[in-house]
Amino acid sequence: MGGANGKSGLRVWRNARLATMADGAAGFGIVEKGAIASRDGLIVYAGPDADMPAAAGQGAETVDCAGRWITPGLIDCHTHLVYAGNRANEFEMRLAGATYEEVARAGGGIVSSVKSLRAVSEDELVAQTLPRLDALMAEGVTTVEVKSGYGLDADNEKKSLRAARRLGDERSVTVRTTCLAAHALPPEAKGDKDAFIDLVAGTILPQVAAEKLADAVDGFCEGIAFSPEQMALVFDKAKALGLPVKLHADQLSNLHGAVLAARYGALSADHLEYTDEEGAEAMAKAGTVATILPGAYYFIRETKKPPVDLFRRHGVKMAVATDSNPGTSPLTSLLLTMNMAATLFGMTVDECLAGVTREASRALGLLDSTGTLEVGKSADLAIWDIERPAELVYRMGFNPLHARIWRGQ
Amino acid sequence: MGGANGKSGLRVWRNARLATMADGAAGFGIVEKGAIASRDGLIVYAGPDADMPAAAGQGAETVDCAGRWITPGLIDCHTHLVYAGNRANEFEMRLAGATYEEVARAGGGIVSSVKSLRAVSEDELVAQTLPRLDALMAEGVTTVEVKSGYGLDADNEKKSLRAARRLGDERSVTVRTTCLAAHALPPEAKGDKDAFIDLVAGTILPQVAAEKLADAVDGFCEGIAFSPEQMALVFDKAKALGLPVKLHADQLSNLHGAVLAARYGALSADHLEYTDEEGAEAMAKAGTVATILPGAYYFIRETKKPPVDLFRRHGVKMAVATDSNPGTSPLTSLLLTMNMAATLFGMTVDECLAGVTREASRALGLLDSTGTLEVGKSADLAIWDIERPAELVYRMGFNPLHARIWRGQ
Ligand SMILES: [Zn+2]
Ligand SMILES: [Zn+2]
Repeated sequence: MGGANGKSGLRVWRNARLATMADGAAGFGIVEKGAIASRDGLIVYAGPDADMPAAAGQGAETVDCAGRWITPGLIDCHTHLVYAGNRANEFEMRLAGATYEEVARAGGGIVSSVKSLRAVSEDELVAQTLPRLDALMAEGVTTVEVKSGYGLDADNEKKSLRAARRLGDERSVTVRTTCLAAHALPPEAKGDKDAFIDLVAGTILPQVAAEKLADAVDGFCEGIAFSPEQMALVFDKAKALGLPVKLHADQLSNLHGAVLAARYGALSADHLEYTDEEGAEAMAKAGTVATILPGAYYFIRETKKPPVDLFRRHGVKMAVATDSNPGTSPLTSLLLTMNMAATLFGMTVDECLAGVTREASRALGLLDSTGTLEVGKSADLAIWDIERPAELVYRMGFNPLHARIWRGQ
Repeated sequence: MGGANGKSGLRVWRNARLATMADGAAGFGIVEKGAIASRDGLIVYAGPDADMPAAAGQGAETVDCAGRWITPGLIDCHTHLVYAGNRANEFEMRLAGATYEEVARAGGGIVSSVKSLRAVSEDELVAQTLPRLDALMAEGVTTVEVKSGYGLDADNEKKSLRAARRLGDERSVTVRTTCLAAHALPPEAKGDKDAFIDLVAGTILPQVAAEKLADAVDGFCEGIAFSPEQMALVFDKAKALGLPVKLHADQLSNLHGAVLAARYGALSADHLEYTDEEGAEAMAKAGTVATILPGAYYFIRETKKPPVDLFRRHGVKMAVATDSNPGTSPLTSLLLTMNMAATLFGMTVDECLAGVTREASRALGLLDSTGTLEVGKSADLAIWDIERPAELVYRMGFNPLHARIWRGQ
């Protein structure tokens, strides 16, 4: 990786304003006249320009940032980016007055995404996903989580996860994959949820783990999906396979998914519109991150907001993500997602920015390697044409990215 | 203009699917295997590829659209695009818990935009506006309306309108300018609204008209701005000067602004959250377009929706626009605006698409020259990488534009 850089793979960004987002630092962790140095893709200095050790800059390729802001590269920690086709037709039908039943009878709903995904090759799946990934990256995303969950059998779940892994070969971005086989019941299960959970825990997860296709295991705990007891069986298997877990929890009702997630030491519990104080307490104790997904809330016209105040009060860390998916959040802008978190849920600007950097990284178990501008982490940077970080949250449909750096490049 | 084209300035797009949006045609006015021909920037054919007269294609530069969709170039018919600075700091303060009064004491509110605009040169104003215009154009916008209203004295209103006109020299886009001097009270007016309206009608409008800087006259009729009686004085002068009018009406309360606008045969009345049936009836009779502005509704967390059903019932035409402005709608995506109109107000996909093409054109008095794919109109086209028009409304933060054509180029 050093070849394209200055001597010894050194690169330096000077004359910048840094929002380091360092853990424990107040607000954005601002360094007004800042500099960053990287060697072989890792940050070796981040701090005041005047204090940079001479060694860090010697022989380096130097970039003058002309006073621009640098934040950590953005992290989208919850997406269903790998899918085939789209569900614009259902959106159109519903606006024209069709009921959910009429949409379902016309072949709509999650089953339509399962059908579409099963019908395409892995290559085609990658090709259809890349424009969505490109949209995220164009706004400074350097790490993205991608879930399976439209395959719903061993072969198609593995195809989805392989396609997700390949995104990281096709583009300069870190991809983390999550097996969400326990997402919904496929048509061939004929309504037998227990039998399908057996398939997930007994067959799909072991195969996925054996081929090292997933970095984590997720599930959808909801009346319309799987019960806490069913999810516990999936999580037990994930633990046995050495995979960390996360959960779609308490989105449409309070099944105490947050408590379940915390009990399993989940990296994150996600959605959480209906989570109560017991859930928030449990998450705080377990260090489980609350992933806030305003895109789905907005798109499905939900009215119950996640309990942001409870999370604050109990010290639960909050991540913010797109939940990019064809059915409930066809959203591929993490900047817009921050605006939604602020506008719809009252999250502050620094909570939003931490939510797509440090806390998103924590929600992926990556805090040691990315998510803040600190020595030893990957030199994943977003450089912005803005006067203050709040502009990243305030605008809607505007991209002020000047440059995006992944692993020092 | 013909020089860069084929012989005789002829250009042809074949193998396309057209959403002509022609008036009177059902839905999108779809032509499945369509073609468009332009000569010297005007559409000379739009219809089935097989029926295109040989003469229309002979010697033309031909583009194979590979089955892509073509819509009319998009039209943003309500923007305050020309401004200096931004108000991200106020957004940040409010999220951190500051009251409106605290924001005002810190120099916030519309007065801060007036101060910023007065402090910069016309050149600087153009330079600050161009990135916002570029964001709109990147999504296929070929016509944009731009209001003044942060100058609030003769010199600064004229500076704003000159800057707006210059946008059309700097970019390949049609710009329509609107004098919105009756937007707010400047600090030097010391609370005397009547005296300021005298200044607007007696000095600012005549000067603006003499220099041909505005294509229309607008005002803000609201408790916090100007009364219907004050607006009538402005409209009387506009009429005398031969300028069409439009109105920010019934956004925060029902002052019967819609009725006032209709009485003056306004091109459009805009916002309309509080408009009642009497207002809708009056607008229908007068042919005044209802311009729906979901960005401001969303951003200021308004809860009262504009009466879309009333407008449908009375046959009021509906346009959809960004209202792009620094205080209540820092929005520069017309695609996202359509999504908001659908998601927040239940407008259908064809209403949304008509709202940013045909009806937006009508709201600007330009229906003879743009807004649909019909013979005789400007060849303003947007060519999209989509499978169905609904995708333009369904996605959030994704731009599927393949190419943008303005006046045949
Ligand atoms: Zn999800
Ligand atoms: Zn406005």
